Amino acid sequence: MAATDTPWRPFRQAGALRRPMIDPAFVQGHPAYPDAFAQFFAGHGRYGHFAERVGNRNSRNGWRRRALAPGPAVGAEIVARHHEAAAQAGQGGDAARHQHRVDRLGQHHVRAAFEQVGRHFRLRGRSEHDRHRKGIVGADSPAHPPHQIARLLHAEIRVHHQKVDHFRPEVVFGIVAVVKAQQIPASQHAKGAGDDITAAEVEIAQQGAHTWGVVGHGLPSWQERTTFWPPAFRSPSDRSATSEFVAGLVNIGLSRLDKIWPGMPSSRFGFKRAYEGFMHVYRSHTCGQLKAADAGIQARLSGWVHRKRDHGNLLFVDLRDHYGITQCVIDVSSPVFAALDKARPESVITVTGKVVKRSAETINPRLPTGEIELQVAEVEIQSIADVLPIQVAGDQEYPEDMRLRYRFLDLRREDVHANMMLRSRVIAYLRQAMIGQGFTEFQTPILTASSPEGARDYLVPSRIHPGKFYALPQAPQQFKQLLMVAGFDKYFQIAPCFRDEAGRADRSPGEFYQLDFEMSYVTQDDVFAAIEPVLEGVFKEFGKGRAVTPAPFPRITYADSMLKYGSDKPDLRNPIIIADVTEPFRGSGFGLFAKLVDKGAVVRAIPAPGAAGQPRSWFDKLNDWARENGAGGLGYIQFAADGPKGPIAKNLEPARVEAIKAAANLKDGDAVFFACDKALPAAKFAGLVRTKIGNELDLLEKDVFKFCWTVDFPMYEINEETGLVEFSHNPFSMPQGGMDALLNQDPLTINAYQYDIVCNGVELSSGAIRNHRPDIMYKAFEIAGYSAAHVEEHFGGMLNAFKFGAPPHGGSAPGVDRIVMLLADQPNIREIILFPMNQQAQDLLMQAPAEIAMERLRELHIKVDLPKPKKEVKEG
Amino acid sequence: MAATDTPWRPFRQAGALRRPMIDPAFVQGHPAYPDAFAQFFAGHGRYGHFAERVGNRNSRNGWRRRALAPGPAVGAEIVARHHEAAAQAGQGGDAARHQHRVDRLGQHHVRAAFEQVGRHFRLRGRSEHDRHRKGIVGADSPAHPPHQIARLLHAEIRVHHQKVDHFRPEVVFGIVAVVKAQQIPASQHAKGAGDDITAAEVEIAQQGAHTWGVVGHGLPSWQERTTFWPPAFRSPSDRSATSEFVAGLVNIGLSRLDKIWPGMPSSRFGFKRAYEGFMHVYRSHTCGQLKAADAGIQARLSGWVHRKRDHGNLLFVDLRDHYGITQCVIDVSSPVFAALDKARPESVITVTGKVVKRSAETINPRLPTGEIELQVAEVEIQSIADVLPIQVAGDQEYPEDMRLRYRFLDLRREDVHANMMLRSRVIAYLRQAMIGQGFTEFQTPILTASSPEGARDYLVPSRIHPGKFYALPQAPQQFKQLLMVAGFDKYFQIAPCFRDEAGRADRSPGEFYQLDFEMSYVTQDDVFAAIEPVLEGVFKEFGKGRAVTPAPFPRITYADSMLKYGSDKPDLRNPIIIADVTEPFRGSGFGLFAKLVDKGAVVRAIPAPGAAGQPRSWFDKLNDWARENGAGGLGYIQFAADGPKGPIAKNLEPARVEAIKAAANLKDGDAVFFACDKALPAAKFAGLVRTKIGNELDLLEKDVFKFCWTVDFPMYEINEETGLVEFSHNPFSMPQGGMDALLNQDPLTINAYQYDIVCNGVELSSGAIRNHRPDIMYKAFEIAGYSAAHVEEHFGGMLNAFKFGAPPHGGSAPGVDRIVMLLADQPNIREIILFPMNQQAQDLLMQAPAEIAMERLRELHIKVDLPKPKKEVKEG
Repeated sequence: MAATDTPWRPFRQAGALRRPMIDPAFVQGHPAYPDAFAQFFAGHGRYGHFAERVGNRNSRNGWRRRALAPGPAVGAEIVARHHEAAAQAGQGGDAARHQHRVDRLGQHHVRAAFEQVGRHFRLRGRSEHDRHRKGIVGADSPAHPPHQIARLLHAEIRVHHQKVDHFRPEVVFGIVAVVKAQQIPASQHAKGAGDDITAAEVEIAQQGAHTWGVVGHGLPSWQERTTFWPPAFRSPSDRSATSEFVAGLVNIGLSRLDKIWPGMPSSRFGFKRAYEGFMHVYRSHTCGQLKAADAGIQARLSGWVHRKRDHGNLLFVDLRDHYGITQCVIDVSSPVFAALDKARPESVITVTGKVVKRSAETINPRLPTGEIELQVAEVEIQSIADVLPIQVAGDQEYPEDMRLRYRFLDLRREDVHANMMLRSRVIAYLRQAMIGQGFTEFQTPILTASSPEGARDYLVPSRIHPGKFYALPQAPQQFKQLLMVAGFDKYFQIAPCFRDEAGRADRSPGEFYQLDFEMSYVTQDDVFAAIEPVLEGVFKEFGKGRAVTPAPFPRITYADSMLKYGSDKPDLRNPIIIADVTEPFRGSGFGLFAKLVDKGAVVRAIPAPGAAGQPRSWFDKLNDWARENGAGGLGYIQFAADGPKGPIAKNLEPARVEAIKAAANLKDGDAVFFACDKALPAAKFAGLVRTKIGNELDLLEKDVFKFCWTVDFPMYEINEETGLVEFSHNPFSMPQGGMDALLNQDPLTINAYQYDIVCNGVELSSGAIRNHRPDIMYKAFEIAGYSAAHVEEHFGGMLNAFKFGAPPHGGSAPGVDRIVMLLADQPNIREIILFPMNQQAQDLLMQAPAEIAMERLRELHIKVDLPKPKKEVKEG
Repeated sequence: MAATDTPWRPFRQAGALRRPMIDPAFVQGHPAYPDAFAQFFAGHGRYGHFAERVGNRNSRNGWRRRALAPGPAVGAEIVARHHEAAAQAGQGGDAARHQHRVDRLGQHHVRAAFEQVGRHFRLRGRSEHDRHRKGIVGADSPAHPPHQIARLLHAEIRVHHQKVDHFRPEVVFGIVAVVKAQQIPASQHAKGAGDDITAAEVEIAQQGAHTWGVVGHGLPSWQERTTFWPPAFRSPSDRSATSEFVAGLVNIGLSRLDKIWPGMPSSRFGFKRAYEGFMHVYRSHTCGQLKAADAGIQARLSGWVHRKRDHGNLLFVDLRDHYGITQCVIDVSSPVFAALDKARPESVITVTGKVVKRSAETINPRLPTGEIELQVAEVEIQSIADVLPIQVAGDQEYPEDMRLRYRFLDLRREDVHANMMLRSRVIAYLRQAMIGQGFTEFQTPILTASSPEGARDYLVPSRIHPGKFYALPQAPQQFKQLLMVAGFDKYFQIAPCFRDEAGRADRSPGEFYQLDFEMSYVTQDDVFAAIEPVLEGVFKEFGKGRAVTPAPFPRITYADSMLKYGSDKPDLRNPIIIADVTEPFRGSGFGLFAKLVDKGAVVRAIPAPGAAGQPRSWFDKLNDWARENGAGGLGYIQFAADGPKGPIAKNLEPARVEAIKAAANLKDGDAVFFACDKALPAAKFAGLVRTKIGNELDLLEKDVFKFCWTVDFPMYEINEETGLVEFSHNPFSMPQGGMDALLNQDPLTINAYQYDIVCNGVELSSGAIRNHRPDIMYKAFEIAGYSAAHVEEHFGGMLNAFKFGAPPHGGSAPGVDRIVMLLADQPNIREIILFPMNQQAQDLLMQAPAEIAMERLRELHIKVDLPKPKKEVKEG
């Protein structure tokens, strides 16, 4: 390790510690403790790794260790470095204080301490070391008491603390050092004197770790807990346990020191300042972590000034970060009051001070940190905020464009922040669930060719190939099928999809995301069985206790769905079931419907449970609503106690009214509405009526996610204008019955293995078992009026791949944004996307789209072709 | 449940089972067994859920159950459905067989069976049921023996099979039914007669599950294992255990039946055919799963014809799928021989037959399924392959363009397939590791604004905003910093990045991926401490046993790195350390260097350990190499045993040669080369020489991943041409010492908190602690010659955000593709990307980029501006 390197350089250089990490005062310490602390801090030097750790290369947790053998040379180096640090510090304000310490520090003090450490832990040859490493308690070989004691303690700790079972011996050595420092008579060493490190001691260690300000069980990750801990001691295995316990070790030392060296002037040099010297430059805790148990410790927090409350001689500041809010308080007499007072809302500050319990009446039960507050002793302004265009605290409403322009402020607001975290957690869950189902995630190209999907592509001009364009994928459809042809069996991707479509409440102009998946050698039911537990699981996990349809989800045929629910996306929360009542009206006295029925129309009855008693105005309002939605009106019958009422009932024979009552499962007290038109429009309008009545009568089941599959979509339908057969939905799905059905069945009776997954009336995705057979594809397209040449020209890529051995495969692609909208009860998609465009497809934050310099367009061989300005039509 | 619905409709409709699922032959069964099988299969009806399952709404594993109470009505329904199935089947080929069964089936048989079942399992009021549900063995209440026995068995199973501890009672009922069917004397019921279902019985069940062809412990996911199992019995919890055990139940019944009804004509109607009826239409096992233990069972496999070997009267076909290869064999006399023979290589087929052990000499130890083969009895061609343009089996080499055009075939090849799976697993590991470190994954926009990063953007013309363009992000840099300003604390993303750059071996023209991450309130060391365990972990996990530098990785300053390794991306596998030997040459007799040194040049010595004995030709070859790389030549000294030799040594005083020997740590037997030039070019050339010699002398450490951080990059450097101070690397990193350094220090001495992470000489990523302070940013840019206006014009988005409270933050973005290339030992990036473009930025598979119809360009307000064809320069 080069002389210029000092062990604490990386820390001071990183601004992490204002003072040199190894404050010589510790080393000087009390004669009784030299080895404990010398050993403890000798290990801090990172560059030279001179405190080599014990163990062998392939120990269970993979932590590479070398024999622990700090030698006397270490002592000399520590002194040399300190002189260097003092010189460097000389330029800063601490010159006087450092120089003072150097004089106090006698070289011999240090060397003596490290020689003692060296003797204790110097290990003989490796073989001897290995022999003992296996036997947990090598009682028969006092040759290495410390090593043996360490093993003993290691075992004991394992028993007490399951989670620290894979503990690293070098930490245990620290404990041994502490035990030894109590000058335990040598005789006790032989038989594992370490026994007196009782569970109670371990408890102190844990408790100590707490007071050390390192440990808060609420800390989200080991970083915050170990940030103060010099990287040298981090093992790749469970560091959280390591840090908690090691910090506890320090505290055993602290408590022991008080016993053995009472009244040690901790203020001047010693542990309190060491304690601070160890605190991270920005935070020892997050703002969501300090609890009553932390009262009394020093803590440092960083975050945004959420709110300020001036109480005359006391200033209260609510400090907020990602993890929560902590109340900080400062007295007007404090030297740093002015600095804190100056910090406007949303400024970023770092405060250090003592954690104190709040008085009973000021405890805030709604805040996880509501039992304590931080008495501010030090303030550092990290970044002053200008006057805010939108407030973060509170729930004032702002126009969407304003929120998007200042999205980095909008995202700090509690609900918006929570929505984005929900999205991330949902996606992480979906990934894990799919991997758990045996799927593998693959990335498919984003710069690719224009695809024949429905919507418009976003195009990307090529620089190298003048006049040619890439396209952004509307969906990875072709690539995922090619992955099946390539034999990958089970693919999934949280896939970005790009469609140049107008924005809507539930549609974002930029990219959207799908849980895209595909499987080989599967039937429709296998696809359902793969995705159902994932969807059921994610809605149970994040549905805040709302009920979820258990797998297997109900399968409803397209025909049943259109009849009973008036939609291929049935909302099963609505109990209303539509019934066909064409026959009772055929040739009936109600001429309006009878004539239409004769011309091929159907009549659908939409029950309105318990609505017979509604006032006349209620029915009239629905009638107007029907007209606004393009219907002639909305006929109805009220099954009042004294018999059916309403214009239609009067014109129908009682038997026909009874037939309607039976077909629509009605009882007295109900009403029923009718839709009469050709089959498809009648079904769709009946569906609208069903939804309207469900909402009007508040019939929808609450707090539930109702799933179903819509299956058996027709392969073909008749084009109203041309009267020709055309594909009804997805031309690439496998017809049920395969080639045999295409050859022998009336095309309009052929169903496709095509399905939609629906939740609460929202279509999460469509999917299909694909048509992987070129011969069947040519035939299917031929029936819809397409020549083989057309198929090859438009779908040559896929067709070509299918000619070299394609497996049967199928899949689907539930919309991730839609899943998150359902879970967050958010109708507007922009509330669950971090940086969405507005409905005019503009990114107001980053100013996109924007004009581009001419030479860059020239490089891409394109010119702008602006629309000619429309000639202004002169007034009058 | 509507009459038209039949319990088996969904299966036949899904083509999963060729025969109706509930084969009446089971129901008919032997009088002794009616209830066992009736109960077992009564549960199969999915639509009506008529076999309601037992339990309450919030049982531990969330499986919603209702009381189990099949009544006599069930029997009648089964018969009705069967008639319907027989009628439907009538159209297919099985009409005769089904009709035969219906006559054999007496209505009374079925009704009697189900009444018995009903009595056994009809439960009284819910409260009583709940009371027993808690007590595992309610020995004191014989009122519900079956229920109580079920609980007892459930407990016993938990003891034997930890993994089935959360078993669902309704499956246990199946066992009870089997036990009861043995007409165990009623008296034994009271005291838990179930005890005789011993561990052995359970073993049979497991073994039975095996023979049932359902279970292969190697099956990758529960789907394959339970695919045959009607979805009705799948609980969202551990279905794999459920399926294994329930299948075992069937086998207990099978084995019991033989004992009680020996010689039951299993061939005609009974379990063998039932067994087949239950097999999945495509696969009961994958091609990597059948082992010796499976010998004797019927199995169905699907996959690609990998190889065919014709042995005269036997045809061997190696069938391949994603999971492995299984040898299938068919005799020339078999009726399906022709079909199999016709299937060309890479055709997709489904084969069914018996699993048999191979004879000892034909066992293939290299194949996981090498102990068995499948005797083919049935063949179904799923998709015939044309003549292949590139072979999949074997390791023939093909030109890259050919492989990219037929990528779906190329990806089937073993190594290419393995590389892609490695990529996916590495990415999944990285995600998990980052989440484990407390990071959250966020998606940032892909359609955004043009960014000021170095390379060219891909542009996307806007349809709605004529003349304006979006851009694809070169990196999510600005968005991730905005996420820190928005307070999300810890972000990461497997982020797609788009740079319009020429292709190279290690660079793909399309998008590439980074493990992009950013953290708030952190120092440089915190960033290192967060990513080091992730990188160390992934290289240990996927490095095939190669050693990995343990965290914390060495920190090497930029200055040290350029001096010692001649690069800011040092390859630490190469032991050679370059030394500065300017002084020994200053004013020396070797005029060439002495003159250059006087003009400010430096001399770097590159040791060549043990090379003194190399022949003259070796040195001359290196000299030529140096000239090819733009140097004047490559001076050297050989420290031979009898003293230093070579032209340079002759012109240097011995003391100077000794000084060189000491400075460069040389010993007799070594040689040393020299680079003399200005500091930077000398360092870089010395780096090239170091790499060249390292390779020539084969000095590089093998099978190791050597990591390090290059830190302390200079903030500024002098522009050679203009002589002005300019940014040396990343203008947005925080200068060390902050504003104080910018104000008081010589700019050329200011280092930045900027760092690179390097592995084996490959730069995985650069990163920095960002400059989050507008005031410091203006000052930093001012020193580099930029006005405040310039800063606001080009970086207004970020600067504006920093004015509303920005936290200190930093991060990095290791390249995912580079990590996978290192792990896969693949120098060519196209070998680890699924569908890469070629080096001319073309997607040969999907034909991109491509010309686009005029009207679509008009919609985007752009025109093509083709380069004018260059006038042909007439010859001569």
